[in-house]
Amino acid sequence: MAAAEDETSNFSEPEAHPMSGGDGPNSYANNSTLQKGAVDSAKELISKAVAEKLDTDVLLSSNTFRVADLGCSVGPNTFLSVENILEAVELKYQSQGLNSQIPEFQVFFNDHTLNDFNKLFYSLPQNRRYYAAGVPGSFYGRLFPNGSINFFHSSYALQWLSRVPKEVVDKNSPAWNKGRIHYSDSTDEVVRAYEAQHAEDMECFLNARAQEIAEGGLMVLIIPGNPNTLLHSNSMGHVTFQLIGSCLMDMARKGVVSEEEVDAYNVPLYAMTPQELEAAVERNEHFNLEKLETLPQVPIPRTVPLTQLASHVRAAFEGVIKQHFGEEILDELFDLYLKKLEDQPSILTSGTSTAINFLAVLKRKAN
Amino acid sequence: MAAAEDETSNFSEPEAHPMSGGDGPNSYANNSTLQKGAVDSAKELISKAVAEKLDTDVLLSSNTFRVADLGCSVGPNTFLSVENILEAVELKYQSQGLNSQIPEFQVFFNDHTLNDFNKLFYSLPQNRRYYAAGVPGSFYGRLFPNGSINFFHSSYALQWLSRVPKEVVDKNSPAWNKGRIHYSDSTDEVVRAYEAQHAEDMECFLNARAQEIAEGGLMVLIIPGNPNTLLHSNSMGHVTFQLIGSCLMDMARKGVVSEEEVDAYNVPLYAMTPQELEAAVERNEHFNLEKLETLPQVPIPRTVPLTQLASHVRAAFEGVIKQHFGEEILDELFDLYLKKLEDQPSILTSGTSTAINFLAVLKRKAN
Repeated sequence: MAAAEDETSNFSEPEAHPMSGGDGPNSYANNSTLQKGAVDSAKELISKAVAEKLDTDVLLSSNTFRVADLGCSVGPNTFLSVENILEAVELKYQSQGLNSQIPEFQVFFNDHTLNDFNKLFYSLPQNRRYYAAGVPGSFYGRLFPNGSINFFHSSYALQWLSRVPKEVVDKNSPAWNKGRIHYSDSTDEVVRAYEAQHAEDMECFLNARAQEIAEGGLMVLIIPGNPNTLLHSNSMGHVTFQLIGSCLMDMARKGVVSEEEVDAYNVPLYAMTPQELEAAVERNEHFNLEKLETLPQVPIPRTVPLTQLASHVRAAFEGVIKQHFGEEILDELFDLYLKKLEDQPSILTSGTSTAINFLAVLKRKAN
Repeated sequence: MAAAEDETSNFSEPEAHPMSGGDGPNSYANNSTLQKGAVDSAKELISKAVAEKLDTDVLLSSNTFRVADLGCSVGPNTFLSVENILEAVELKYQSQGLNSQIPEFQVFFNDHTLNDFNKLFYSLPQNRRYYAAGVPGSFYGRLFPNGSINFFHSSYALQWLSRVPKEVVDKNSPAWNKGRIHYSDSTDEVVRAYEAQHAEDMECFLNARAQEIAEGGLMVLIIPGNPNTLLHSNSMGHVTFQLIGSCLMDMARKGVVSEEEVDAYNVPLYAMTPQELEAAVERNEHFNLEKLETLPQVPIPRTVPLTQLASHVRAAFEGVIKQHFGEEILDELFDLYLKKLEDQPSILTSGTSTAINFLAVLKRKAN
């Protein structure tokens, strides 16, 4: 018990950066259609992974199949992903003539404690075929008992670091990120601080999952990131953060926020490459990387109005910004953001065209 | 799978009657000290039940011990109860020289979907020794996979019926409960309608738990109810509902609410007797009733100010009242309630002195 106790004895959380809860015009629930593109294009790959890699021999020893979605937010994408997974698992059983042994399903929806679980719970599909549970806490730590989860899924969540690297908000560090809010348009020192934080986070993530996953279990990760060849300065979100950063600096000049506040603020997002994921899995040693594929690009339709794009960005980031600057600056900040977008709409295509979404399938090695 | 699918295919909920969420002056979290009395007096009985009745032979086959608290509300009482249970289980293992085989703990906190799970989650003890999950839904239906829970606990929750009996709000039924809001001060027909609803609910409750409980598992129920010999007209809450009912009728006379609204409103609370519980367990056939004890009376201290008592009543009932009459009547209603209490404080001792809390320990029979 000693070891287990150590692991579970402190559930204090790293920084939380929940999506906007509720269902107002700026909520994540109403502004996650771009993420839905990734869910749709992942569907077929997940079905294939289950068909090829899921180990029914091992599964037959239990009559419950447990799925966990890590970083589920408030829906509806998490419900679609879960439905895809359960359908694929049922198909696999059926294809092997095991119809009568299809297990019961239990699904754990995980996100930070500050996630709007109330909203998630009353959005749960009425006709679901699974027992649902919510699990609050950071997926960079332990969340489940040993060997208890048969299928891990995480979509559009691992780009969030557990925290802002300490050095980038430390005035006395060479990695101090003055006047900027992200590494993507910054110095090499800042980039390295983010890289190191990401490597540490991936180690924690994979170690925790290696203990929680059941024998024969699978893990599917869908990650927005960079192709191996892309420079950090062209990284995902580059444009978004440059724009938000410049809005904040404008507001600092007007005295709405202080320049020190902007200096002390950094977005804990990291665009990893497929190569970085491979390296992390190799270092961890507990998983085989069964598959690593780039998802088809879902281009931002040219017909999407800029106001809608701005709403998406607001839904994704207002939570972290509010925590630092307070709620009262949000309207002004995102009005300014929209204005800058409208002034130079071409800026949009410069960054996002190079970003990718990729999907990884991991399988626990035998002990 | 067919059977399991039927059971889980419809998760629509019976009526919800959540405690007041948040942490304002009228919240349940700040007004549940009377319930804490029951938690404290149950502690020793739970330890004894675990020591005497928990079957460690069976448990050793699994390395996770799963606990579910049904009707957990938002804390803090649920955390105290869970801590008591885990302590007792650890002691049991230790007393049998099984220190090295103490399992990991996973605790499921269950309540209605409208319960404030956000509040529950951020109140979770930081140094807990268990993996926590929230499970939304009525405990009169299925909540967990087959055979997955080792210990069920439910305290101060089973007095809530799944719904108001249909007949009592039906103008054309002999059981129509005109001008009153509960059976305790009403006709025999109304009493019988409540009795029938309670019997049906207990059947659903025990059937669901019989499927969900693991081999060798225990269930501890703490129930506020009536002694076997008490007439319904002296039932738990009699005074409270009579007072609230008369406040509502006063407000109907003043035109704040309509008389029809009061007629259509009934509190879905039922004070069962130990005998009724015994009968329900016998009818269900899946459990042995290992223990049935009346908890020591926790008298309302004479020093508790009436305003505090009124706050307790408000915390417990404002949720159900709000659903029917709307939020705007709450302040006036409970001001009036307090005034009536202050006018005749002796009324308090007439009802509550006869109510009891009892504790039942159930064990799943072998299949």
